[in-house]
Amino acid sequence: MTANAQEATGGIVLGENQYGKAEVRVLKVDRDRPRHRITDLSVTSQLRGDFAAAHVEGDQGKVVPTDTQKNTIFALAKDGIGSPEEFAVRLSEHFTSSFDWVAGGRWEVEEYSWEHIPSSLTHNVTDGEHDHSFVRGGTETRTAVVQREGDEIFVVAGLQDLKVLKSTGSEFHGFPRDRFTTLPETTDRILATSVTARWRYTKDALDYNATYDDVRRILLETFADVHSLALQQTLFQMGRRVLEAHPEIGEIRFSMPNLHHFLVDMEPFGLENPNEVFYAADRPYGKIEAEVRRDGAAAEPRAWSTVSGFC
Amino acid sequence: MTANAQEATGGIVLGENQYGKAEVRVLKVDRDRPRHRITDLSVTSQLRGDFAAAHVEGDQGKVVPTDTQKNTIFALAKDGIGSPEEFAVRLSEHFTSSFDWVAGGRWEVEEYSWEHIPSSLTHNVTDGEHDHSFVRGGTETRTAVVQREGDEIFVVAGLQDLKVLKSTGSEFHGFPRDRFTTLPETTDRILATSVTARWRYTKDALDYNATYDDVRRILLETFADVHSLALQQTLFQMGRRVLEAHPEIGEIRFSMPNLHHFLVDMEPFGLENPNEVFYAADRPYGKIEAEVRRDGAAAEPRAWSTVSGFC
Amino acid sequence: MTANAQEATGGIVLGENQYGKAEVRVLKVDRDRPRHRITDLSVTSQLRGDFAAAHVEGDQGKVVPTDTQKNTIFALAKDGIGSPEEFAVRLSEHFTSSFDWVAGGRWEVEEYSWEHIPSSLTHNVTDGEHDHSFVRGGTETRTAVVQREGDEIFVVAGLQDLKVLKSTGSEFHGFPRDRFTTLPETTDRILATSVTARWRYTKDALDYNATYDDVRRILLETFADVHSLALQQTLFQMGRRVLEAHPEIGEIRFSMPNLHHFLVDMEPFGLENPNEVFYAADRPYGKIEAEVRRDGAAAEPRAWSTVSGFC
Amino acid sequence: MTANAQEATGGIVLGENQYGKAEVRVLKVDRDRPRHRITDLSVTSQLRGDFAAAHVEGDQGKVVPTDTQKNTIFALAKDGIGSPEEFAVRLSEHFTSSFDWVAGGRWEVEEYSWEHIPSSLTHNVTDGEHDHSFVRGGTETRTAVVQREGDEIFVVAGLQDLKVLKSTGSEFHGFPRDRFTTLPETTDRILATSVTARWRYTKDALDYNATYDDVRRILLETFADVHSLALQQTLFQMGRRVLEAHPEIGEIRFSMPNLHHFLVDMEPFGLENPNEVFYAADRPYGKIEAEVRRDGAAAEPRAWSTVSGFC
Repeated sequence: MTANAQEATGGIVLGENQYGKAEVRVLKVDRDRPRHRITDLSVTSQLRGDFAAAHVEGDQGKVVPTDTQKNTIFALAKDGIGSPEEFAVRLSEHFTSSFDWVAGGRWEVEEYSWEHIPSSLTHNVTDGEHDHSFVRGGTETRTAVVQREGDEIFVVAGLQDLKVLKSTGSEFHGFPRDRFTTLPETTDRILATSVTARWRYTKDALDYNATYDDVRRILLETFADVHSLALQQTLFQMGRRVLEAHPEIGEIRFSMPNLHHFLVDMEPFGLENPNEVFYAADRPYGKIEAEVRRDGAAAEPRAWSTVSGFC
Repeated sequence: MTANAQEATGGIVLGENQYGKAEVRVLKVDRDRPRHRITDLSVTSQLRGDFAAAHVEGDQGKVVPTDTQKNTIFALAKDGIGSPEEFAVRLSEHFTSSFDWVAGGRWEVEEYSWEHIPSSLTHNVTDGEHDHSFVRGGTETRTAVVQREGDEIFVVAGLQDLKVLKSTGSEFHGFPRDRFTTLPETTDRILATSVTARWRYTKDALDYNATYDDVRRILLETFADVHSLALQQTLFQMGRRVLEAHPEIGEIRFSMPNLHHFLVDMEPFGLENPNEVFYAADRPYGKIEAEVRRDGAAAEPRAWSTVSGFC
Repeated sequence: MTANAQEATGGIVLGENQYGKAEVRVLKVDRDRPRHRITDLSVTSQLRGDFAAAHVEGDQGKVVPTDTQKNTIFALAKDGIGSPEEFAVRLSEHFTSSFDWVAGGRWEVEEYSWEHIPSSLTHNVTDGEHDHSFVRGGTETRTAVVQREGDEIFVVAGLQDLKVLKSTGSEFHGFPRDRFTTLPETTDRILATSVTARWRYTKDALDYNATYDDVRRILLETFADVHSLALQQTLFQMGRRVLEAHPEIGEIRFSMPNLHHFLVDMEPFGLENPNEVFYAADRPYGKIEAEVRRDGAAAEPRAWSTVSGFC
Repeated sequence: MTANAQEATGGIVLGENQYGKAEVRVLKVDRDRPRHRITDLSVTSQLRGDFAAAHVEGDQGKVVPTDTQKNTIFALAKDGIGSPEEFAVRLSEHFTSSFDWVAGGRWEVEEYSWEHIPSSLTHNVTDGEHDHSFVRGGTETRTAVVQREGDEIFVVAGLQDLKVLKSTGSEFHGFPRDRFTTLPETTDRILATSVTARWRYTKDALDYNATYDDVRRILLETFADVHSLALQQTLFQMGRRVLEAHPEIGEIRFSMPNLHHFLVDMEPFGLENPNEVFYAADRPYGKIEAEVRRDGAAAEPRAWSTVSGFC
């Protein structure tokens, strides 16, 4: 921002800012072999740097158009995605090295999973799966947020909307009661949540895809394995086991709704209901958010700024 | 409606009507064995019959409350779901036999799929899967609409949001051109859709769950197998193979969006793009809807009335 | 469909079908005067006719591309929209007159309302409103579905998501009770709904915009005015008053959820709650659907086929 | 957390955390006069404090149930809402004063606007509006986030989804071009966005409702008034005018999508299109985020932590 611009605004100035193109939907097909691979992404690119003149004076001289950012996402996809994390890092390198006033930015990637269609037929089918036909996989979305300040790169991987449920093995009791407490205690309830987890990598040059798969496996197995005294306890164990297995992860943050399934009271109908029929409620829902981290390790708030929600 | 009510409205009368409770979310747990089974439904119940007085005079004497319909859904779930189709038929029997002014109605069920969580651990794990912990399955929803008029029952099964994609094996050319046509012809494009299919059963006492699984399998395999000259052709073959394999199905209707994936033009960037990088568009999208049926068979419009969309 | 095609399918044939482009988002600016007018539409065009060869043989010789349908929507918008109904009729005339194998089709239009931004400033402001700056209006969407068979045109106008609420003046009692009934009777409750209404015009060359505005006014005023003994009663009066005021409307159909607001039981907290604090529930909800029509008038099922939901 | 718990976790510890009940939907009716007033809220309450034992040991001794938090929201609504900000502050006072281990927390409120239904009838109508019948107002949602640490209270007010559009008076040119730039320059385009704005109050005991109304007015008038050289410039002016008019606001943050409306190329159809027909795109969209603040004023990051998105 020039001195004039500053003066013109009477002590009111531009603070932090970022801009770019959001939710660029890219499908990359790797077709070098008969058995295709596809990568399905939504990519958001936002730049940070010296953009005060655009805001204060309407001067676009340094504003790399969001349309150009979109085109760049497509062009770089041509060379292969690798993993969401690697692709975001490559985008960050491109923009900071191409424009000297771009000091850094934020690149967010969502990936949707697809599986080869199983087939009992034989044409274009290998090992019981069709070579170039796919069906959408699970309900969860893989996420990656890469933020960059100059040469410093912060990589936060994650997943969202991983829906899980235990039909027993969950209790909730021993809580304090006050004037407004009406909840009964229970030693057998349904525990259901939709896991959003994000974790920060403290090393680079990882096999991001293999690490993601293993973290997802640990999250699922731990949710299943823990006899739960509260969703908080399950959350902490999920985080602990991930950190124990993966020293390259500094900390992990969770946002987990408690998706209530209320036992239907059938006494008015003259029926018993021994934990068989439940009403699945939408709202309100519990909302449990926490970070699990290594004791004594340095925090890195820049990795977590502008990461949505608690996580 | 009484004669008085009729007069009072000056020649303006009540036409067709139905009412009830929508989207009752029921989770049924079968826990007679250590390996639990869960059934996750959204149930809508609507009654038809002699309800003119409620509309014209505000007289609720025959209005079975929607709240009672909800309670009944829970109470009947206690005896087991069986299949969405059987559960809807049981609801129809309950309401028409319990209230003599209820002539029929409409019962719609959505079912969401859950799978046991795979686990490498051993506690509460059978054959590599946890006994009572689940993860949501595919993105599609199973549907059933049962409509009843007295003793006549019409059962339409289906699925929606089954997302599939072919990365090659799809062409589109030979179409007519006019002043407004700018679309180039292609012999290799991506074909993607989100299948909504509904089919009518012409027999009862079926194994609805096994039939559903087989129809879903045929739909996926046929989508994969057909070298497509248009989404219309793929749709027709999907329907044909279902009808050939399942004589108990009278006809099948599809509503299939053509989810466009446009090849990114990289010529301005000095790059080639041999069908590798695509832009996945949201709107507008193609919308292909058709019925596939048996030649000469009688139609049954009552089975299809109030079934949403084309299907 | 050729005879060969028919034979090839072994008695399995194509039934009803339609295809086209869905949700083409058009913004039309009328800028002949300093005070601009804007029209914001989502348009879906689907053709019906002789399309068997495309389905059965993969022959696109008669398939007007959905892309061409999209282009046509834009091109015809250039000449002005008029009203959603008139625009859909013009689209129907274009396609049936341009391609002799197109026998008819279905054109659906949604319109979103915008209002000039009120302004206390003076530049580009006329009568307290900015000339070319707009803010989105109410939450409801205006709808129109035009279906055509040759020269017969069926016009169904409507609106959806018109959210209304009465904080008193609603009762519900006198209903039958059975084993599953637990609902208490009430003489003062909240009544809330989100109105979807669709009505059929029996004349053409109407002032569709003025008629729409008046029907909307009647629906709101009647909802407010009727002391309700049930949502069914309110619905019927809304329909009756529309038909009484508008002889050019043959019948009107409603789909109205009963959006429950439950009185919070504050007795456990030692508090009274005389109809002051309510919990707004999402699901399940009541679902009330009915047609109000003129006694003795001929029905026109072709106007209502493929109109979503009950309406 | 006890020393034992700490040891048991092998150097892996609980980080920041918060928990509570989300999206409690409250409708409050003020019915002391014939002309009712209604307040329609979604309230989320989350507590922070000494909750390590719940996570690490499954000990609920200090866990105020989320169900109790929900009940408390209803109970406190009984005494009146006042404004979203005041209601959230009252909740914060209740929880921190009632439980000595609750050190603070986060309370978020969304408010949906309703207007009295205009009526030409006379019964229960005052000044042309019905006394107790309402229609939902504009599309935007008012928001408030109150965070508390002991006696320190941070209040961030805001709104989201305020959709605005200029049909002229917007340019975009002078931007840098590189290999991937294909965007043409323009001196007349459509500018459309859906404003999300959040601002921090630096004083308490404000008239929050009057201030909200005035900020909303300034945002709309400024959007309309500014001849825009870029959305960034419009954003900055919107923020500047709010800060100039309201010294009680420390800073304001915006997240504003650039909702693209592309001019349809009608040259292939042999038609001109002088900025009359536009295609409204969904994705990707521009995403412009920035803070406008007072030069030299102290930042308060605790007010902005866990506020979703950039804002």
